[in-house]
Parts: sequence; structure tokens; C-alpha cells
Amino acid sequence: MSDTKTVRFGILGCIRFASKFVRTVTQSSNAVIIAISDPSLETAKTFAATNNLSPETVKIYGSYEELLNDENVDAVYLTMPVTQRGKWAVTAAEKKKHVLVEKPPAQDSTELEKIVEACESNGVQFMDGTIWLHHQRTVKIRDTMFDSGLLGDVRHMYSTMTTPVPEQVLERLTKEAMGLAGAIGELGWYPIGAALWAMSYQMPISVRALPSSVSTNSVGTILSCTASLQFGSTATAIVHCSFLSQLSTDLAISGSKGSIQMNDYVIPYKEDTAWFEYTCGAKFVDMHIGWNVTPEKVTVDCGGTAETQEAMMLREFTLLVEGIKRGDLEADRRWAEISKKTQLVVDAVKKSVDINCEVVHL
Amino acid sequence: MSDTKTVRFGILGCIRFASKFVRTVTQSSNAVIIAISDPSLETAKTFAATNNLSPETVKIYGSYEELLNDENVDAVYLTMPVTQRGKWAVTAAEKKKHVLVEKPPAQDSTELEKIVEACESNGVQFMDGTIWLHHQRTVKIRDTMFDSGLLGDVRHMYSTMTTPVPEQVLERLTKEAMGLAGAIGELGWYPIGAALWAMSYQMPISVRALPSSVSTNSVGTILSCTASLQFGSTATAIVHCSFLSQLSTDLAISGSKGSIQMNDYVIPYKEDTAWFEYTCGAKFVDMHIGWNVTPEKVTVDCGGTAETQEAMMLREFTLLVEGIKRGDLEADRRWAEISKKTQLVVDAVKKSVDINCEVVHL
Repeated sequence: MSDTKTVRFGILGCIRFASKFVRTVTQSSNAVIIAISDPSLETAKTFAATNNLSPETVKIYGSYEELLNDENVDAVYLTMPVTQRGKWAVTAAEKKKHVLVEKPPAQDSTELEKIVEACESNGVQFMDGTIWLHHQRTVKIRDTMFDSGLLGDVRHMYSTMTTPVPEQVLERLTKEAMGLAGAIGELGWYPIGAALWAMSYQMPISVRALPSSVSTNSVGTILSCTASLQFGSTATAIVHCSFLSQLSTDLAISGSKGSIQMNDYVIPYKEDTAWFEYTCGAKFVDMHIGWNVTPEKVTVDCGGTAETQEAMMLREFTLLVEGIKRGDLEADRRWAEISKKTQLVVDAVKKSVDINCEVVHL
Repeated sequence: MSDTKTVRFGILGCIRFASKFVRTVTQSSNAVIIAISDPSLETAKTFAATNNLSPETVKIYGSYEELLNDENVDAVYLTMPVTQRGKWAVTAAEKKKHVLVEKPPAQDSTELEKIVEACESNGVQFMDGTIWLHHQRTVKIRDTMFDSGLLGDVRHMYSTMTTPVPEQVLERLTKEAMGLAGAIGELGWYPIGAALWAMSYQMPISVRALPSSVSTNSVGTILSCTASLQFGSTATAIVHCSFLSQLSTDLAISGSKGSIQMNDYVIPYKEDTAWFEYTCGAKFVDMHIGWNVTPEKVTVDCGGTAETQEAMMLREFTLLVEGIKRGDLEADRRWAEISKKTQLVVDAVKKSVDINCEVVHL
């Protein structure tokens, strides 16, 4: 029954956005969707029809539980609201399903610890769906700017994830839908993760939300927040998330020798190609009438749909699952470590908001 | 003796950087340098020789006072350390010289008020040397992004001015040389001014330095600082200045409808051309596999040396001076207003640093 070269996926949560995952799996050579589920069977059926998932090859369940009891399912992709991810990710792990869960994977670190422990004790792979970490551009920056020493020591970072929500929808962003951390979890996950990534996952020593930056709606959901992260004594990050600004996904990293800049680090403008810009050894020329350098643009070709960031993430996940299925590999704990560190900082920023934007030490 | 079409300049402070001003005046059609001065006559003589200023046409003085007593001088350009600018700018105004003073023009708002009052009561023009405000790109952004409504309401701004100083020099950045505000005055002047410019000079209601961001050297000079500025209830700015990072001059403005981005707003990469990028109505496309837009690049041709930002500033200043000399114009108080507002915010950030990074209300 089990073909170790093919990872058989089930989807928990037939939201519209899950179409992207269907597309990625369909384009892959070593994964297949064999089941979908939603608390509303009708929603699941509509999703199947919309995404050309034939009931002959894909089981359609009206509950997550049924899908998790399907012994043919190797791995699950969880997209339900963050407030339910903890419960179902733990259940999935206990049913020996490998867990790929949308970000943020949990409401807080306590819940995330439970998920990760369940995955580890059941020998299944854990990964959250922070796609940009898998993009070849991300890998290229790590190699060419950080590991090569071109950037020098990181001094200052600025990172955002803002996306506008229509005014009438803002009030519907409840804590049930968004989790307690609101925009900090839903959006801030990205800029916080970007700062950690740039610091090679060194943890900040302290964080602080900026009091004037915090907005909430009438039901208390955090809609926007800016926070500062202090890493050791020499590096700081400013992270900004908001449902009130137009779409922005900026990442600027300033080092002792060079700096890099992207404005689409979360999702590249185009699927088949992506770029970043950097300067190195920049200074004003004599008389300060210009610079000695202009930004260098480095373009990364993603070679069609085979190497999009979604495809790269799926490949990483499925190669691990295949290895575990064959008995060649153990689950790779690196992805859980990244998730846990990101969640700890999300929690700390949320805590700072809760205590009147005082400093929170980590 | 007086030709109203030619503004006769004297330079106070023969620092190397003043060569840029000599170049700009030399290339202009309505200004001329007729005197230079420095407390060291030797320095003034060397400056004259280096910059091809002939003693036959340019008086060389060994003191500022002598130059200010030269009745042929219409206007002065002040470049001495910030700690001396207040005294000499006031003296210049009292001697009926129009005042173009490098930024920051004073050590604090009290001192700046004295300069501005001296200029106003003596009927002379005041302007500080914040060149980028005069660049055609700056004007173009104002017209096409702000006044047209393309950007919408400003929500969030991020602006930097960082420039590395060699480690052995950091200790020589004394308060005598840098003023009490240190990097906040010397560098922060730019990002603070940029935020004010983006807000059409609406003042912030509060500012706060971020505690973890403040570095000082052993003599207490502020070397780096990040601060947040709160404008009303909907717009915030993060401003960052540092002598510890590599050169950066970033300005990102995120609005309710669009956003703009520059990485060289203080001094463009190249003298003859400059650009900015913007997106408008940006959103992720269906399935979040890309954006509906990519940044638009708008290039501004500066048409050779006649329209560099230095030339534009000099033209603005000299046209005013010519008008005042003819008796057609009164001094334009707009430039003093911009300086005063910028200085007030610089002072507030400095005060926040002084009171353990508490909020300072304006």
C-alpha cells in the first residue's frame, strides 16, 4: 500500500487559499492529494470541484477526524484558523501523520510546544508554512551576503508585512479567527521571522512594542504594531505589521560592510524570477555629489513552476517524509526550532503590548 | 556697487566639504564667491588654492568677524561646527548678511529661534542646507504621489541616515564638534526631516527613542539612535541614525493606497539623474503566487549640473536674496519654519534619550 516515493496528503480546512497547495502538489512529482476535509462537507465538495479534485481519487470528508483516521494519509496540511491549529496538529501527530501547518502554527509558544512534542514523540515531521524561507533567493542571500562576509555584522534591520483589510471587515477580525496575538501572529510572524533569519536564529535579548504603533479594533484584536528587537549590544530590528496599510513586505538589512534590500521577501512579485539589491562598501564620493556604488541587482531564476518557493518547501518536506517512511531519516527538528523561536518572539511582542509596551526580556 | 542679479557670497569655515559649495556657485549664473574666512588664515589660504579661488577676486580672511565686516558680502554660507553656528549666524544677520547655514543649523531650538529672529528682524533670508528638499525628485514625488492622492493617507514611514565612522575616530566625536544631540542632530536631521516632509509638516504629537537603539561613545556623544514619531492617531514614523552602520539613506513611505521607496534620498547615487519606485493598489494575485503590480520606477533627469539639488537650492536662495535686494520680496519664512519644526523634533528625540527613552509629547 505504501509507496515511499509518494507522499499522500490530506488537507484539513478547505479555505480558498488552500488551492495554492493543491496546485503545488499537482505540479510535484512525489506528492499527491488523496483526501480533503472541512467541518462543512458542502465546503469540501465545492473545494474539490473548484480545484479539479476527482472524488474517484480524492476522499472528501465532512470532519477533520475522519480524515485523520484515514490510514492511507501520510501527511496533512492544516489551514484552519490559528485558534484550531494546535488541537488538530496534535491529533494529526498522534495519528502518525506528518504535519505541515500554515503559519502561525499555534496561538502561543505553550501550544506550539505541545504540537512539536506530539510530532517528536510520534516520529513525524513538523514544518510550518513560512514559504519564503525555502525560496532560492533566500538561500542565495544567505550564501552570497552573509556566509561570504560581504554584509559584515548585522547592525540594523527593518522588516514589514502589511496588508490592507477593508474597513467593514476589520471589525470581523475576532480573536476566535485571528488568535490572541492578532496581527502580530498573522502578519508579524514574517518580519519577526525575517529578523531571526538574518541573525542566524540568535534570539533577541529584549523586545518592545512601540506604544504609539498599536491599534486594535472594538473587540480588542491587534490590527497593527511596530516593535523593536534588540540582539546583543550591536544589532537591532524594527518589525512592523498592519492591516491598515497597503501591501508591503519590505526587508532591509544593514550591516557593517554592506546592506541588502527587498520589497517582496514574503511572496516575490513574480513566480518565475526574484531579485534582491545590495550595496557593499558604499560611501559618498568626494564633495558628496553622489555614491561610489549603485545598488547591485541579483536575479534568481526559479526555472518555471518546478522551483517556486512553494515547490521548494514541498520538496523539502516530502523528501523528509519519504526518508522517514523508508526508515532512512529521522524527523528534522530544525524546522520546529525555527517555528519555536519565531513564536517566542511573537509572544514577547504580544506580551509587551499587554504590559503597556514595556520592555520584555527573553 | 550692488548688482541685484549677482549674490556675492562669503564662506565662513573653510572645511573640505565647502568645496562643494564653491563648485555650485562657480557653475551658477547669479552667484559669486567674493570672500572666504577661517579662524586659521593658513587653512583659508590653502582652501583658496585648492579650489582655484584667486586672491585677486576673493578676499581671504583669518577670522569670521573680518568677513562679516566686509560690506561687499551679501550672503554667507556657514560650515563651521554646529556648536559655533548659532553665534555666527546671529552675527551675520545683524551685519545684514543673508544666511545659508549647514544643517543642523543650531544646537537646539532655543538657539535656532535666536538665529531666525535675528534674520527676521534684520530682513535677511534664512535657509539651512538640507539639500534634498530642493531636488526635482522631491518636488516630483510631492506632486505625483502626495498631491495627486496616489499614495492616500500616510500610515507608516521608515527613514535612515547612517554613515560609518572608523572606530578610532568615534572617540573624537566630541560634544564640542557634534553638538549635544550628536548623531541625532548630525544625521537624524535627515530622517526626521523626511518624515515631517512626508506629513506636509504636520508635527508629531509624541516621539520616543528606543532604549536598545541608543549608543554613545566614552565622552557621551550619541552615536546611534532609533526613534518612533507618532503623528495623530494614524501615522507613525521610524527614524534611524547611526555612525556605526554602513552608508544608508532609505526612505519608505507607506500610505493607504500606495507606497514609495528610495534608498538615496539624501544624496542621489548619481548627480545627473535620480529615481524613486512606487506601487499603487498593490495586492497579491489569486492564490498568492505573486503581486498584481511590480514597482514602477520614475526617473528624474537633472539635465546636467544646472539642475543638481545643490544648484536648485542655490537658485532658490539667490532668487530670494535678489528679490530682497531689489526690494521686490520679503524674506521667505517657509525655510525657517521647516528648520524650526525639524529642530523641535530633533530636540524631542534627544530629550527622550535623556529621560531614559520615555515618551516626549510635543
